[in-house]
Amino acid sequence: MRILLVNGNTTAAITELCAAAGRAAASPGTEVVPLTPAIGPAVISSRLENAIAAHGMLEAMAPFAGKVDGVLLAVSYDTALEAARQLMPCPVLGMTEAACLTAMTVGRRFGLVTFGGVEIYRELIAHHGFSGRLAGLLGVSATPKDALDDPQAVAVQVNTAIAALVSQGAESIVLGGAALAGMGARLNSPVPLLDGIACGVRLLEGLAGLKLPRPLNGSLAPVKGRASQGLGDALAQALQG
Amino acid sequence: MRILLVNGNTTAAITELCAAAGRAAASPGTEVVPLTPAIGPAVISSRLENAIAAHGMLEAMAPFAGKVDGVLLAVSYDTALEAARQLMPCPVLGMTEAACLTAMTVGRRFGLVTFGGVEIYRELIAHHGFSGRLAGLLGVSATPKDALDDPQAVAVQVNTAIAALVSQGAESIVLGGAALAGMGARLNSPVPLLDGIACGVRLLEGLAGLKLPRPLNGSLAPVKGRASQGLGDALAQALQG
Amino acid sequence: MRILLVNGNTTAAITELCAAAGRAAASPGTEVVPLTPAIGPAVISSRLENAIAAHGMLEAMAPFAGKVDGVLLAVSYDTALEAARQLMPCPVLGMTEAACLTAMTVGRRFGLVTFGGVEIYRELIAHHGFSGRLAGLLGVSATPKDALDDPQAVAVQVNTAIAALVSQGAESIVLGGAALAGMGARLNSPVPLLDGIACGVRLLEGLAGLKLPRPLNGSLAPVKGRASQGLGDALAQALQG
Amino acid sequence: MRILLVNGNTTAAITELCAAAGRAAASPGTEVVPLTPAIGPAVISSRLENAIAAHGMLEAMAPFAGKVDGVLLAVSYDTALEAARQLMPCPVLGMTEAACLTAMTVGRRFGLVTFGGVEIYRELIAHHGFSGRLAGLLGVSATPKDALDDPQAVAVQVNTAIAALVSQGAESIVLGGAALAGMGARLNSPVPLLDGIACGVRLLEGLAGLKLPRPLNGSLAPVKGRASQGLGDALAQALQG
Amino acid sequence: MRILLVNGNTTAAITELCAAAGRAAASPGTEVVPLTPAIGPAVISSRLENAIAAHGMLEAMAPFAGKVDGVLLAVSYDTALEAARQLMPCPVLGMTEAACLTAMTVGRRFGLVTFGGVEIYRELIAHHGFSGRLAGLLGVSATPKDALDDPQAVAVQVNTAIAALVSQGAESIVLGGAALAGMGARLNSPVPLLDGIACGVRLLEGLAGLKLPRPLNGSLAPVKGRASQGLGDALAQALQG
Amino acid sequence: MRILLVNGNTTAAITELCAAAGRAAASPGTEVVPLTPAIGPAVISSRLENAIAAHGMLEAMAPFAGKVDGVLLAVSYDTALEAARQLMPCPVLGMTEAACLTAMTVGRRFGLVTFGGVEIYRELIAHHGFSGRLAGLLGVSATPKDALDDPQAVAVQVNTAIAALVSQGAESIVLGGAALAGMGARLNSPVPLLDGIACGVRLLEGLAGLKLPRPLNGSLAPVKGRASQGLGDALAQALQG
Repeated sequence: MRILLVNGNTTAAITELCAAAGRAAASPGTEVVPLTPAIGPAVISSRLENAIAAHGMLEAMAPFAGKVDGVLLAVSYDTALEAARQLMPCPVLGMTEAACLTAMTVGRRFGLVTFGGVEIYRELIAHHGFSGRLAGLLGVSATPKDALDDPQAVAVQVNTAIAALVSQGAESIVLGGAALAGMGARLNSPVPLLDGIACGVRLLEGLAGLKLPRPLNGSLAPVKGRASQGLGDALAQALQG
Repeated sequence: MRILLVNGNTTAAITELCAAAGRAAASPGTEVVPLTPAIGPAVISSRLENAIAAHGMLEAMAPFAGKVDGVLLAVSYDTALEAARQLMPCPVLGMTEAACLTAMTVGRRFGLVTFGGVEIYRELIAHHGFSGRLAGLLGVSATPKDALDDPQAVAVQVNTAIAALVSQGAESIVLGGAALAGMGARLNSPVPLLDGIACGVRLLEGLAGLKLPRPLNGSLAPVKGRASQGLGDALAQALQG
Repeated sequence: MRILLVNGNTTAAITELCAAAGRAAASPGTEVVPLTPAIGPAVISSRLENAIAAHGMLEAMAPFAGKVDGVLLAVSYDTALEAARQLMPCPVLGMTEAACLTAMTVGRRFGLVTFGGVEIYRELIAHHGFSGRLAGLLGVSATPKDALDDPQAVAVQVNTAIAALVSQGAESIVLGGAALAGMGARLNSPVPLLDGIACGVRLLEGLAGLKLPRPLNGSLAPVKGRASQGLGDALAQALQG
Repeated sequence: MRILLVNGNTTAAITELCAAAGRAAASPGTEVVPLTPAIGPAVISSRLENAIAAHGMLEAMAPFAGKVDGVLLAVSYDTALEAARQLMPCPVLGMTEAACLTAMTVGRRFGLVTFGGVEIYRELIAHHGFSGRLAGLLGVSATPKDALDDPQAVAVQVNTAIAALVSQGAESIVLGGAALAGMGARLNSPVPLLDGIACGVRLLEGLAGLKLPRPLNGSLAPVKGRASQGLGDALAQALQG
Repeated sequence: MRILLVNGNTTAAITELCAAAGRAAASPGTEVVPLTPAIGPAVISSRLENAIAAHGMLEAMAPFAGKVDGVLLAVSYDTALEAARQLMPCPVLGMTEAACLTAMTVGRRFGLVTFGGVEIYRELIAHHGFSGRLAGLLGVSATPKDALDDPQAVAVQVNTAIAALVSQGAESIVLGGAALAGMGARLNSPVPLLDGIACGVRLLEGLAGLKLPRPLNGSLAPVKGRASQGLGDALAQALQG
Repeated sequence: MRILLVNGNTTAAITELCAAAGRAAASPGTEVVPLTPAIGPAVISSRLENAIAAHGMLEAMAPFAGKVDGVLLAVSYDTALEAARQLMPCPVLGMTEAACLTAMTVGRRFGLVTFGGVEIYRELIAHHGFSGRLAGLLGVSATPKDALDDPQAVAVQVNTAIAALVSQGAESIVLGGAALAGMGARLNSPVPLLDGIACGVRLLEGLAGLKLPRPLNGSLAPVKGRASQGLGDALAQALQG
């Protein structure tokens, strides 16, 4: 089985980190194929960058249609998720979506902890329809760079946030962003911690095995006969159908 | 990997049908272990039977704690789901829950079709927190027995219901109840059809691989030191912790 | 008028306490009939015990069908409520349901205070459809035993919780659990305190007087012709109809 | 026990009809005191009339503060409900509120049938926080006058609406408006029909018996020291406290 | 363009303050016409006063039907909003509604800060259907009079509340009540502050220019042929149509 | 005042049609500046095209930052709305957002009619937080081309849809897509019809006059210091801040 792991930003080093996490979680026989977009923001941390990034991700993944068994969006805002589902003939998961789906099988309500602001996550979870299962979101005042420079100090903050979410009723914790997943052993939680890359790879393996047909109808049915201007060849051709 | 498939009713023939469906969906190397409760209703089709059945299911599965890698509740009302999660040290999924989780990765909104009334399913989906992704529920006026006696006539009704749900915006269809899944090739849908047994087995394989710890805290943390009266040995001991 | 007061656990002393509270609230001429299940947990304080308890409660109340004018479930999780409605030919109320119904006539939003965790109450109120009227839930870190050992210390905690709920907008307070109701005069609240036993008895008197017919249709219509295995005689017969 | 039954419009004949229905439902020893406002619309059937009517109702009931044990608003829009609660020292119920509270103890979801438009009822039920328990609302194209002129023809329409609501999942039916309640025996329903006047009188008897204190805090606490201009004496004095 | 600015209370000095704020925001050529009701509370700060005030406002504005291009309700509870829409042939806005509509174009979620209790605002925002965009509400423990006596001390409290709302995710702040708007330059916010009078005047100018027809159908269509008793001439005639 | 009208697709003829509609609605002195993206789909009618289009729109509008007083997104999916708000220093409205905001001041619940599927609109309205005010959505089985070829036949269909939405409680109708707005006089509705271009221009005139500051905080605060790759100069520079 081949799982395409598509980064949302143009920084190849982050793609590699995520691919390594994906390989660690994968079953024997699963190949994780990393992919970095050629155009877009270096890192996504705002609504503006998020909106821009979708195009580059779709350009990057279009040539892989039919050549992989699943696609994992390795970007914690699940950027371009439904568009990727419409483009690709295989199962597609966003990493935060995957962590949330898992969370809902592990406890009744879940929390999300991240670096920085939480509003985009709040909306993402609402878009997924999971808000009723959300106990709370907390953003730690630290950057991924801080986590590299002084991991112990940042871990203290994250652990405080985890404890606060648990006291609000969280029975599992989604880690928002790859940097948090990387803190691994320093984190300390009375409830399961969920990393979207690991969850995404495992769930995609399961979903791919169901061999479900593509929808012929509805808002995710494949497009065809659609003209465009200024797009890369593979994406323009995918629109033509 | 061993997956315990627990029927909700006391009819062993139904357990066997579900186990066969589970085996068909399982990966190589996965063993499906069927289990039929000793006490409870012969078939669950009312709130009253559903409330009674939980006890028998928990009695039946208690002896398997620690001996299986996952538990699938083969009852379309996902009876006793959270109690089973609290009881068992491995991942537990309900079959309708599993189909709904899959549905949400396949299309934006899903429909559910079943035989008979839909109100218990409506509440179950609300309890899971998935109502925002639900396009509609339709109950066909037929019984599982009708489906055996005149499968073609019943298939026509089910296909009409599927088409109606698609026109209401359903982008995938959850089959409510094992009898519907059994109609297999007679069903005709422009969007994917989701059988809870197949979805449940595949997702459990993925979840088991994540090797998540049990929660130490919250409403699903294991119980201990709890007295009881009149229960079977394994369940009474599980309450003692 | 005869009101059957069914405890959810197998501890007769708790049944007696609740019955005494019910008698104190009842109108002249109302008889409160206490009932303790023979099988089930000694006390319900987890999802697992709650799921098990339903069966024993239904076994216990089945012989009273047609012999009482109302049924009050004297268990703060309103265990088996809809199943009891389907089983019994008279009005049935859960004690927390009764307190919430009363709360909504007394103020706009209400709070709930209890000993221990609040998640099961949060879901119960959502199941009843009352979440939009809920200002908050608070669980005091004390046990019913603490309340007996050092009532004054526990009352201080409960009063602090009440004040916090009022500051969040609660205009009445539901007492979650019989132990809280027993603290009576030690509690201090600027808004009405609602005990489910008292509310339940009074509302049942009113509802019984309406002499509403049973539903012939829908998910609470009586069952008939349903087979079962291993159940007590009265309950098995009730399923047969 | 004395229950003040306050009509929302200025038509005394409607007050009398409602009072008769109230007396029929009341327990022995309960006195129903009818009250018709002196200013306001002759009949309320629009948002504009509803907004105007509140003032007249409050003027009319102000002199009865302390002289009755409960107040029933005999107007199906539950006009001025919270204001009346703030004004009066006893329990207050709206007739539609009372029917909905009862409905939620009788079945899981309820329907509402009325003459004319349903939007104001939809909002009222949302305001009460009961929308999650609502299966649907249907407005029959008939007027109260039609119901007097050709009751059989109108009953056919109402019965069709009831059947439609049941097929949408209604397990009880709230009758919106006094005219519908008057159709009594001509209506035909597989699920209980709920008349707000009867439900209101019975529930008020129960609530009055709880002898709950007034709130000292929150949005329904009594006002005092409030100046006004152009109001009747009793209401102006009530604002002064 | 003429905009009628209707105060909700009978205090002419407040009407004048609001009119001055309206004029400051208006485009050149817009005339703001102030109007104070003759009957009702001197100030609205409770549910009871709010319910009473609607009648007086409608009496006051009825004579202006057809003589103004828009109506702004200068009362922060948006009292009688839908009734005014049904009465008047021109666009009508409530001041809090106008601030909320603006808030939703400026940031994703908004906060509301006011003097005193927040429950009526919470319900108002729910009634408008805007709760999903609301980050929180905070009531400062001060009165409008305090704001006049020691504006700096009150500003400190309001600024603290603003900062708390921003930390809860508010991306703009609605000022609840005219007194807050008057604190102008003393307030200090990292996100836009929205005064309902200014927003209302500007939006009404825009809406009036659309020259939309009145609805012929639905709950806001004009009434006619409606009898009444004890109302002023203009309002009684408006009901007659 | 200058309002930038940004098309979402790369078809200049559609931009011109929308600009003409915008000019017809504008106040004297307002200049409507049309803008067509250089890259992206020729027409947006799928999730995939919608996700791609955002990038091209942001590239196109970036050079206008600081040179216009408002931005109207002339694409009925309100593509890239929040990203545009974060990018541009002036008010930004989406055309469907503008029509919905107006709808909520005209009636209680609104409907939306469009050509083709409604799911993306349903989600858009949920994203805006307006679902509680939505009576229904209907998609007519016709294309914009059909509307040009046989406008009368298509108008019949649209009018049927409008009537159906009114019967479901819609008190105004949002026209989803520019093609519908163009059908103008052929449409026949008992409730106001709302064209997003007209509503958007008028509301932007009002909002621009409020001269609100940009947020310094929150998810719409301007970005700075953000690196990127492969973007146009103006957009890359905007990310740099």
